[in-house]
Amino acid sequence: MKRNLILLFSLISCELYAQTFTVQSPDKMITLSARLANNGTASYEVAYKNKEVIERSTMGFVLKDPNITLNRFSLVTTDTSTYDKSWKPVWGEYSTIRDQHTELRLHLKNKGEPDIQTIIVFRVFNEGVGIRYEFPDQEKLDHFVVGDEQTEFNLTGDHKTFWIPGDYDTNEYMYNTTRLSEVDAGSGAMSQEIHAKTFFNKNAVQTPLMMKSSGGLYINIHEAALLNYPAMNLVIDKTSFTLTSHLVPDAVGNKAYLQTPAKTPWRTIIVSDKATDIIAANRMILNLNEPSTVKDPSFITPQKYVGIWWEMHVGKSSWDYAGGQVGSQQQSRVPHGATTANTKKYIDFASKHGFKGVLVEGWNTGWEDWFGKWKEDVFDFVTPYPDYNVKELSRYGASKGVKIIMHHETSGAVTNYERWMDTAYKFMRDHGMNAVKSGYVGRIIPRGEHHDGQWMVRHYERVAKKTGSYRISVNMHESVRLTGLHRTYPNWIASEAARGNEFNAWSTGNPPEHETILPFTRLMGGPMDYTPGIFQIKLNVYDVIKKEQVHTTLAKQLALYITMYSPIQMAADLPENYEKHMDAFQFIKDVAVDWGDTKVLAAEPGDYLVIARKAKGKPTWFIGAITDEQKRNTDVSFSFLDKGKNYVATIYGDAADAHWEKNPQSYSINKFIVNSTMTLNLALAEGGGAAISIMPATANELKTLKNYR
Amino acid sequence: MKRNLILLFSLISCELYAQTFTVQSPDKMITLSARLANNGTASYEVAYKNKEVIERSTMGFVLKDPNITLNRFSLVTTDTSTYDKSWKPVWGEYSTIRDQHTELRLHLKNKGEPDIQTIIVFRVFNEGVGIRYEFPDQEKLDHFVVGDEQTEFNLTGDHKTFWIPGDYDTNEYMYNTTRLSEVDAGSGAMSQEIHAKTFFNKNAVQTPLMMKSSGGLYINIHEAALLNYPAMNLVIDKTSFTLTSHLVPDAVGNKAYLQTPAKTPWRTIIVSDKATDIIAANRMILNLNEPSTVKDPSFITPQKYVGIWWEMHVGKSSWDYAGGQVGSQQQSRVPHGATTANTKKYIDFASKHGFKGVLVEGWNTGWEDWFGKWKEDVFDFVTPYPDYNVKELSRYGASKGVKIIMHHETSGAVTNYERWMDTAYKFMRDHGMNAVKSGYVGRIIPRGEHHDGQWMVRHYERVAKKTGSYRISVNMHESVRLTGLHRTYPNWIASEAARGNEFNAWSTGNPPEHETILPFTRLMGGPMDYTPGIFQIKLNVYDVIKKEQVHTTLAKQLALYITMYSPIQMAADLPENYEKHMDAFQFIKDVAVDWGDTKVLAAEPGDYLVIARKAKGKPTWFIGAITDEQKRNTDVSFSFLDKGKNYVATIYGDAADAHWEKNPQSYSINKFIVNSTMTLNLALAEGGGAAISIMPATANELKTLKNYR
Repeated sequence: MKRNLILLFSLISCELYAQTFTVQSPDKMITLSARLANNGTASYEVAYKNKEVIERSTMGFVLKDPNITLNRFSLVTTDTSTYDKSWKPVWGEYSTIRDQHTELRLHLKNKGEPDIQTIIVFRVFNEGVGIRYEFPDQEKLDHFVVGDEQTEFNLTGDHKTFWIPGDYDTNEYMYNTTRLSEVDAGSGAMSQEIHAKTFFNKNAVQTPLMMKSSGGLYINIHEAALLNYPAMNLVIDKTSFTLTSHLVPDAVGNKAYLQTPAKTPWRTIIVSDKATDIIAANRMILNLNEPSTVKDPSFITPQKYVGIWWEMHVGKSSWDYAGGQVGSQQQSRVPHGATTANTKKYIDFASKHGFKGVLVEGWNTGWEDWFGKWKEDVFDFVTPYPDYNVKELSRYGASKGVKIIMHHETSGAVTNYERWMDTAYKFMRDHGMNAVKSGYVGRIIPRGEHHDGQWMVRHYERVAKKTGSYRISVNMHESVRLTGLHRTYPNWIASEAARGNEFNAWSTGNPPEHETILPFTRLMGGPMDYTPGIFQIKLNVYDVIKKEQVHTTLAKQLALYITMYSPIQMAADLPENYEKHMDAFQFIKDVAVDWGDTKVLAAEPGDYLVIARKAKGKPTWFIGAITDEQKRNTDVSFSFLDKGKNYVATIYGDAADAHWEKNPQSYSINKFIVNSTMTLNLALAEGGGAAISIMPATANELKTLKNYR
Repeated sequence: MKRNLILLFSLISCELYAQTFTVQSPDKMITLSARLANNGTASYEVAYKNKEVIERSTMGFVLKDPNITLNRFSLVTTDTSTYDKSWKPVWGEYSTIRDQHTELRLHLKNKGEPDIQTIIVFRVFNEGVGIRYEFPDQEKLDHFVVGDEQTEFNLTGDHKTFWIPGDYDTNEYMYNTTRLSEVDAGSGAMSQEIHAKTFFNKNAVQTPLMMKSSGGLYINIHEAALLNYPAMNLVIDKTSFTLTSHLVPDAVGNKAYLQTPAKTPWRTIIVSDKATDIIAANRMILNLNEPSTVKDPSFITPQKYVGIWWEMHVGKSSWDYAGGQVGSQQQSRVPHGATTANTKKYIDFASKHGFKGVLVEGWNTGWEDWFGKWKEDVFDFVTPYPDYNVKELSRYGASKGVKIIMHHETSGAVTNYERWMDTAYKFMRDHGMNAVKSGYVGRIIPRGEHHDGQWMVRHYERVAKKTGSYRISVNMHESVRLTGLHRTYPNWIASEAARGNEFNAWSTGNPPEHETILPFTRLMGGPMDYTPGIFQIKLNVYDVIKKEQVHTTLAKQLALYITMYSPIQMAADLPENYEKHMDAFQFIKDVAVDWGDTKVLAAEPGDYLVIARKAKGKPTWFIGAITDEQKRNTDVSFSFLDKGKNYVATIYGDAADAHWEKNPQSYSINKFIVNSTMTLNLALAEGGGAAISIMPATANELKTLKNYR
């Protein structure tokens, strides 16, 4: 990295703004200016194509122990540098990612005593801005407690906003779309089906926060590299449209315990006049994370998997041995799902159709008595129910090329899980497993701690490190929202951390727009284990009184494998449901999970999304197109295909009469010869979608298939 | 156990007291009567030799979740039984302990809805009363949260009281002696040298609480079998002299999380008109605990030990490698104590003088930066400093018949310790160690939890169980006060849990009366690792400016090996200090640590104490006599010796000019022939004491030694 010690601007003319430092993105489209007022107030503003995005916003910290407010600074020195390098993720949406940015470091010291040094770091990318605080090693500050971080994001107007309530414990809310001034996070009355939630302010929202200005600017605020620090919520001032950071507290009301040298996560502002650019800019968040710490990542396997899971959600079988614990918490007795025989059925299905993993939930003792109890010692992670033979299933799976995916529901009792972690991971290793899905359902123990507080953020990192040391990949459910840490810990292969497909099984569910918002919000931070692929959309087949359903068409479920990026993708429905639609199931069998390139072709948050992705190291492409509750037509240009080559496009689309509610399983499958000069017109039904596989055409296919139009 | 279903009394005549149930101790000296008033209030009272000890005191519970107050009951049935059996402790003050009591069980149900069942259990011993609540398995109560326990101890007057402030985190206070009405636990200003303390009420005191009535009754209130529940403090009503239970809360203000069937600890009331009986009655607390769960206790070794420990307290060497961490937290650099060479010196000394263990503190990395920081990841319990060779020292120790005693300072970061426990105990096993001293200095992590709350009480039990499973004995410092659990977990061989000898090294210290109070308070619950045996009383030999000193004579330090019962006893001073007084050191070499019988010969809390103990399975006796700041003479009758046998008594006493402050190291050693007809007169100096070993006389000794008087 090239470092220059230069003072960019110093405008002494203005009484209020003593010193201004301006840096631009490599493409000059984004301008960040930081200012130090005469009274010592530090602030920044951001412009995009000469339009204000973030107006003058102040920065600072309130420390406890020592009890110091850091909001009046004097300048020690500044430091700028440029950076331009590319790197290759272990897995991802792109085989290569370019990190090109300009960095400005303001070395500040506190006005008055004691003499505390703070560095505010700005990185300006073509996609947006990253801002962090650093507290270097220094004489007057060693251990310290953060009372509050006071970072503002002063917006230019009353933007349209895609938001979920600020909360210390959950991110599984439905999205709301309102103006900033209309945000009403309520009193926690929203999403009653979420058990552990901690509402704190009706004007607070979570990040990633997606907004659209009346002038047509798309703005996304989030954070990157959330380590050893609590997650950030944002509190809205509805008159000034200023968002202020609100960190998740610990059991005694403190925000973070730090020791110099310390760094906060990056606060990220992504901006564009094109919605498609926002999704593509999730690479900026990756660029703000540290490189991989996993030296030999060969054990990390992007994969599709099936599992004993949806059948509990729909009430066909139970997590517990006694047969009472199902998704809807109904009382009727159903068979235990995780039996040796049932698992072998899934292994057979997985093996036959090329899936590498079978997830089994409810395999271990404890499920009878824990939900909602805030009980500490529930699961031990090594004791199977008597009808589940771990050893035999590992053997049987191995003979069929399939691995069991372990399941560790912690019940939120993290103290208990931490006691068992080593034993549990050794148990996995001894039984040939190298992937675990973990869960944090319920209120956290240590009591008073929260899912999104510093203690838990440190826990998730410990799990990522420890699983990595056992050469295990981990997929965390009910964890904190992601912030690009999968760059640093690629064995942390996914998280849920938002409202997944499961809510469709036993709650009011996810409205058709839900999946058009998630890529602009939750997925900005990393892959989500959304568990798509439900073919049996209406759930009254399991129980005639069951009114719940999935709020998409079948074709849209296929499209989600592309629009909802993850290196692990579940084929979440039951084998018997797939067996009724093997033609449509072919897409799930074919679709890749690791990508060489990604093109966001069309997007509008809350409305629609079309993404094309190229399988890593292969000439095949896959396209997903989805819409909200509105039907619509969309043109897909194949200009990204290699010039002069012919491909077979298999289009899994909504049939003409499809409708997410009225006729969700009506789909059509068409094959054509396509090339880079063509543009496909897709008709998406209400709540519908389309999935397309594009493979090089064989000579025979060229003879037998028609060209598209 | 014989059970009779009888209603003892039912007095319907009285409007207020609808039903009364009375039980007596086997010797009829103690009478307990429980009453259920017409309005459903449950209460009890206790009389001793027809004198009221506890006046009508109500009982009850406030539950949260479900939100129910349990203080209005109706009777379902009662149940009484008698019990009389003896048992043999793995180690202790007696080879056999008789458990003789009468039990009354009141099966109650809540008046009104829901229909909650509670059982109040009373056990009446000759020594006193035990009271507990049970919540049996029942339909309307499963998981529940305790908001408060409302057990009263309504005393008959303004008793003289030996008390330390109620606190959630520490029991290392100096004792105060005042009337109940004069208790002023202050605002936590007392004992400033204690780092982690949580004061909550100026009228609150801890148990064991020792009292003396103006009528000459000695009353001790404590608890037995504290498991899965917070410790109890007592809040004094200074007008009615009613003490009310106050449980230590958790991080969110709840007291306990229980699941039926559940039992509270026993609340114990010990009463006698003889102070000596109180100390002997600590057996009642043992009788209220469950039998040993350790199937093969052969690994549990009562022992005397030396260690690299006092030299840090006096500032001669440091815990940390850099040389800054010493007892007084002084800044000057001193050598690191836990070096391989220094440890070998201690091993040589131990081996030469018959000690089985060498404790080494400061052997592992982390000591530089933790004290007072509330930092989570400090120690890993397996990484030695570079100058400490674990493997070599285990080998060297084994060659000399000495084991290293492991040290685990958790820094209060219990989450961290729990992550490491298995690894740490395996490390011990791999290096031939089977005893560990643990420490909980500092505020607890999980933050918001307290040393004496339910979460930590469960932790201490987990440690006792887990060390037991590794065949390791544990000696916990800064743990909750003991409640007789060493019967159930005999590998939990001792705790500190009070103000130990170490305070003399770097604080105002322990006044001369301190050791005359501890046996009536802290030691009622179990053995204390007080670390006696300091010969170099004045500490200015280490640093001329050091004003601190031990507040006893040298002879009293010897007496503490008897008066301060523990199956592990440190010879806490430095080898070079012992080498200057090998004649006095002979007593420490000779004294036993496991006893067949104990006789409390004379006692007055705060004034003096004389105890004789018989070595288990041997014909030798040892006597300890101590006084407070007053000098005094005491007669010791040898009537407990076998009739007609002659013994050699070696009396290690204060010399005529001895005085704890003016001349503490002045002692005399005299040998006489004694027998059961003789009475010894001992002169104890101010802050002084005497230690006596009594061994069968040899023919030669009978010839050469004189009879006593």
